[in-house]
Amino acid sequence: MIIVMKMSAADADVQGVVDRIQEFGLRTHLSRGEERTIIGIIGDERPINKEMLERLEGVEKVLPVLPPYKLASRDFKAENTVISLNGTRIGDRQVVVMAGPCAVENAQQMREVARVLKDVGVTILRGGAFKPRTSPYSFQGLGREGLEILAEVGSEFGLSIVTEVTAPEDVPLVAEYADILQVGTRNMQNYALLHALGEHRRPVLLKRGIMSTLQELLMSAEYILSHGNYRVMLCERGIRTFETYTRNTFDINAIPVLKDLTHLPVIADPSHGTGKWELVGRVARAAVAAGADGLLIEVHPHPEQALSDGAQSLKPERFVALMRELRLVAEAVDRGL
Amino acid sequence: MIIVMKMSAADADVQGVVDRIQEFGLRTHLSRGEERTIIGIIGDERPINKEMLERLEGVEKVLPVLPPYKLASRDFKAENTVISLNGTRIGDRQVVVMAGPCAVENAQQMREVARVLKDVGVTILRGGAFKPRTSPYSFQGLGREGLEILAEVGSEFGLSIVTEVTAPEDVPLVAEYADILQVGTRNMQNYALLHALGEHRRPVLLKRGIMSTLQELLMSAEYILSHGNYRVMLCERGIRTFETYTRNTFDINAIPVLKDLTHLPVIADPSHGTGKWELVGRVARAAVAAGADGLLIEVHPHPEQALSDGAQSLKPERFVALMRELRLVAEAVDRGL
Amino acid sequence: MIIVMKMSAADADVQGVVDRIQEFGLRTHLSRGEERTIIGIIGDERPINKEMLERLEGVEKVLPVLPPYKLASRDFKAENTVISLNGTRIGDRQVVVMAGPCAVENAQQMREVARVLKDVGVTILRGGAFKPRTSPYSFQGLGREGLEILAEVGSEFGLSIVTEVTAPEDVPLVAEYADILQVGTRNMQNYALLHALGEHRRPVLLKRGIMSTLQELLMSAEYILSHGNYRVMLCERGIRTFETYTRNTFDINAIPVLKDLTHLPVIADPSHGTGKWELVGRVARAAVAAGADGLLIEVHPHPEQALSDGAQSLKPERFVALMRELRLVAEAVDRGL
Amino acid sequence: MIIVMKMSAADADVQGVVDRIQEFGLRTHLSRGEERTIIGIIGDERPINKEMLERLEGVEKVLPVLPPYKLASRDFKAENTVISLNGTRIGDRQVVVMAGPCAVENAQQMREVARVLKDVGVTILRGGAFKPRTSPYSFQGLGREGLEILAEVGSEFGLSIVTEVTAPEDVPLVAEYADILQVGTRNMQNYALLHALGEHRRPVLLKRGIMSTLQELLMSAEYILSHGNYRVMLCERGIRTFETYTRNTFDINAIPVLKDLTHLPVIADPSHGTGKWELVGRVARAAVAAGADGLLIEVHPHPEQALSDGAQSLKPERFVALMRELRLVAEAVDRGL
Repeated sequence: MIIVMKMSAADADVQGVVDRIQEFGLRTHLSRGEERTIIGIIGDERPINKEMLERLEGVEKVLPVLPPYKLASRDFKAENTVISLNGTRIGDRQVVVMAGPCAVENAQQMREVARVLKDVGVTILRGGAFKPRTSPYSFQGLGREGLEILAEVGSEFGLSIVTEVTAPEDVPLVAEYADILQVGTRNMQNYALLHALGEHRRPVLLKRGIMSTLQELLMSAEYILSHGNYRVMLCERGIRTFETYTRNTFDINAIPVLKDLTHLPVIADPSHGTGKWELVGRVARAAVAAGADGLLIEVHPHPEQALSDGAQSLKPERFVALMRELRLVAEAVDRGL
Repeated sequence: MIIVMKMSAADADVQGVVDRIQEFGLRTHLSRGEERTIIGIIGDERPINKEMLERLEGVEKVLPVLPPYKLASRDFKAENTVISLNGTRIGDRQVVVMAGPCAVENAQQMREVARVLKDVGVTILRGGAFKPRTSPYSFQGLGREGLEILAEVGSEFGLSIVTEVTAPEDVPLVAEYADILQVGTRNMQNYALLHALGEHRRPVLLKRGIMSTLQELLMSAEYILSHGNYRVMLCERGIRTFETYTRNTFDINAIPVLKDLTHLPVIADPSHGTGKWELVGRVARAAVAAGADGLLIEVHPHPEQALSDGAQSLKPERFVALMRELRLVAEAVDRGL
Repeated sequence: MIIVMKMSAADADVQGVVDRIQEFGLRTHLSRGEERTIIGIIGDERPINKEMLERLEGVEKVLPVLPPYKLASRDFKAENTVISLNGTRIGDRQVVVMAGPCAVENAQQMREVARVLKDVGVTILRGGAFKPRTSPYSFQGLGREGLEILAEVGSEFGLSIVTEVTAPEDVPLVAEYADILQVGTRNMQNYALLHALGEHRRPVLLKRGIMSTLQELLMSAEYILSHGNYRVMLCERGIRTFETYTRNTFDINAIPVLKDLTHLPVIADPSHGTGKWELVGRVARAAVAAGADGLLIEVHPHPEQALSDGAQSLKPERFVALMRELRLVAEAVDRGL
Repeated sequence: MIIVMKMSAADADVQGVVDRIQEFGLRTHLSRGEERTIIGIIGDERPINKEMLERLEGVEKVLPVLPPYKLASRDFKAENTVISLNGTRIGDRQVVVMAGPCAVENAQQMREVARVLKDVGVTILRGGAFKPRTSPYSFQGLGREGLEILAEVGSEFGLSIVTEVTAPEDVPLVAEYADILQVGTRNMQNYALLHALGEHRRPVLLKRGIMSTLQELLMSAEYILSHGNYRVMLCERGIRTFETYTRNTFDINAIPVLKDLTHLPVIADPSHGTGKWELVGRVARAAVAAGADGLLIEVHPHPEQALSDGAQSLKPERFVALMRELRLVAEAVDRGL
């Protein structure tokens, strides 16, 4: 951490800052410039509260030098984390597709989708049983019944299951039925939930908050890692900006940035990232070209009857065609799919 | 809801939309323009899923006409909701101040603050026992011990207590000790928590999500109201924008907008809204001038030693001076404080 | 346009709105719902001022039905606009690359870059002579001398020239030297400049404002088109969001959205869109995969000595390698490059 | 400036950075931490290009220490700049109101407004003759005729005139008729215009760009100051955020922040800051309570017939009532109005 002192700071102020830092067992380094004095902290600055330093007499601003996450960083672990799941390796050379409807509605719907996935070689089925919805008057998901349908259809077709968990006390229940536990965008900073997932050791798909920075996403991953669970995937799913034509703005930059900063697999969700089925295919192709390790795509046999997110769901025919397109792009960037 | 058909829509497409709407027991109204046909829904559109309609053949876009919240609206209840709490009336003519440190650190700290509050006539003490923190390495709050300190100091000084609850299963525990249960910005869309608070019937202070629109804030209030708890206060605490000089951008427009749209009391949090103690006083004055029913202000006896949010906490002397300033502004807009 | 009346609107209010609309020679269509009356405008609503209607007695809100641009829309012209330039066809099957340094510094620098472009088959050279800079103390470009260098090097190597123009009175001067006139992000709504470019009839590369919606970008294009110049390219170059890790957030969604809404060619600028050279290649690949018609890429022989934007400029070796990667991606999406 | 080196940086990299800085005649200061080496620049860092340093071998990031503006800062000039205008002193103890319609439509309209202003003691009349409009099909202002009306009505009622100038070549023309030249939000970074205004020496009202940071606003002011014109007022007029209920988000924090960072007067525009006349009064009161030196308010005798911005214009009666409210708030914060 670098502490920049005010032009008006007295020598006693400088000494006050130095003393405070030394209380934490760290050393300092002074640099007196023409306009301002600057104090550098030598050692691991992470335990020091930046805001506390900002309130010391004579301090103008405090600039962190190290990123605040550690276990999630490439500095800590250089090689890619690969998560294996019934033969599918996420984070490795193959781009992995997870697909299915936004919400589980009934067994027949899930079977229709599962059959399509099976035909095109997709091995992971998605579907929501617990649905966080903006309105209390909207369909909230089938709950436990939805989980049972997922597990049943998954085992019938030999597909792994990814589904959302929304409360810490539901973690054991959902983990009974699902292979990957998804943290939704509204829960990225639900720390009680992250804590529970850290202890449960089931693979986690952590979605970026709709208005969370990449650093905050990495900090939320750090919560799970620091509680002992290292099998975490990060998911870019679009952020909120001033643009209203699309539901969200898919942050394509996030993909190469995360691949450079962390060893964890990076998944793209072009369905939420655009909110419009017409755009999903082209943004999915872009995500693969940018280096995503996987895709999360909404597919619904009858989007015009979907109980949620119909506008962004692909019909099966379109999804099948998209898989062909994605394979070509994956090969062009030296990956498989 | 208004459904705008594409220029290319066929008569059969129009009929398809009309049929679908009638399945919900609603009537429609057709308007054939020069370029496009428009279909209006007659009746309460809230149960209809906008996205489902968007996927019907020939539909270009769907425009909602009614706001999606009902119980929270002024249309539903014209007069202000007033929440009474040991003699303090929130939402009435008096502007109510709630103050205290970000986190409860120990009993002595809380007593120092409580004494200051008592001296200037503030009746509600704030302090966090469960602290959601971005980093797993930061101080996470004292938990139950913090609640005990709060309750003890509150009863000693005759102050009501407002404190945050972060998980549904903690609601009964926190409600044992606190008079107002606060929902933090990261939990505004934690629906399991909102549900629990709706059933528990203790007054709730609902903070706007850092990334949430005013309509989403009202929808989250609707969750609590629709589960039976009508004593909800809304709190503007700054939103995330591109501006980085301040920690958040305090949305002053939100105050008059919310006062016009809803009957619920509107509270302002200039401490989080600015993130810098130097700005808190002037933004607090602005909030009162704009019509806020209350203020939530961070006060710490020794901000330079605070375990969280020291940079935005006022020292007691500054807080005392601010109370005098705020009284003058409140009177200028025909309120008391 | 749809006018939604307030619940409390009287019959006279409804009549007032109808009368006002009829003054513009347009017809109306009434729909009386259970809660509200809705008035539809039949005919071309574009000449009517939405805000004027909003101030009429009893009006709650006004919802536009038609997009406000016309000449730029696919409805107006279904097939792609192709801009031909010394044999290069922009907006056709081939993806077109324009490359060069941010600022023209001297003839030698431009020759080094031009040679690289020539080697890899790039036909359009970029370089800024008039540089809008945030600080008055930064390098502001070489002005006319820069234009002369551009034109000389361009003719020496057989390359077309794209360069920025920043003021209406400079349009004739810049057009003497350049083949494509670029409107920078800060000038997207400089209407005097757009007007001048509309009359001058030289191809225009219109960059999206850092703060502009896609609809506003299309409206700015409409300014140029409506003054008679139909050779306009749109350029996505990243928008400003809350994310600060990257200089801008490249809006990948913008590419398919624009391709669907307009017939004009869509160019991507991954250099400004990311602000970091390490990310440029992967985002460039993504843009091609998403359907961009062209790329604008900063290349500098010695980025560590660049007078502006060095951090986002590629070194020649890296650019050459990127061209190979881009060709593979272009082929994967059935384009050439 | 602080240069943070990568963990992997070699000694030669550190030396390379030091050498490069010394080429600019500046000294450096090294601090070798446990994980990283940090290099501080001693002396005025403003001439050094941050991005150039970022491209040097081994550099991880570059953190500026000094703000990039100088003449505009409180460090440079501690006391408030006061701009005198026919007896009105802007930036002094009195809060100054400037009011009038968005666009000059005809002489009668301006006279109606001027009469109201005169009655309540307002001394500055606003009105647009050159109107930058998003759509080429909207009313673009009366141009020179509008200026003539403004000047005529101003002199008739003894009011000073503020009006917008949109192109550098119009500066002398507009300055013939107006006392204050306004730079609109879309032109905040139109450097050719800022340059012209710097040389013309007429007071300038510089509006913040809709998506510009406060630092960028100060940099644009610096452009004008550095070309010799010190009579610049800054205007907060709302920024673009994700919230769509209001036209813009009025950044109330900007007022105390600017008052602390700069000596220039700070004006608030609650009309554009909200976009809805119902909100203007309460946000105007807030701006005064937060310390604004002046207000820019849209008043129109018949907003429902206004050719632009009718939705945010006050009717004369409401404006007169608001002036009374504002006086009370100004007195409560120890100012006059």
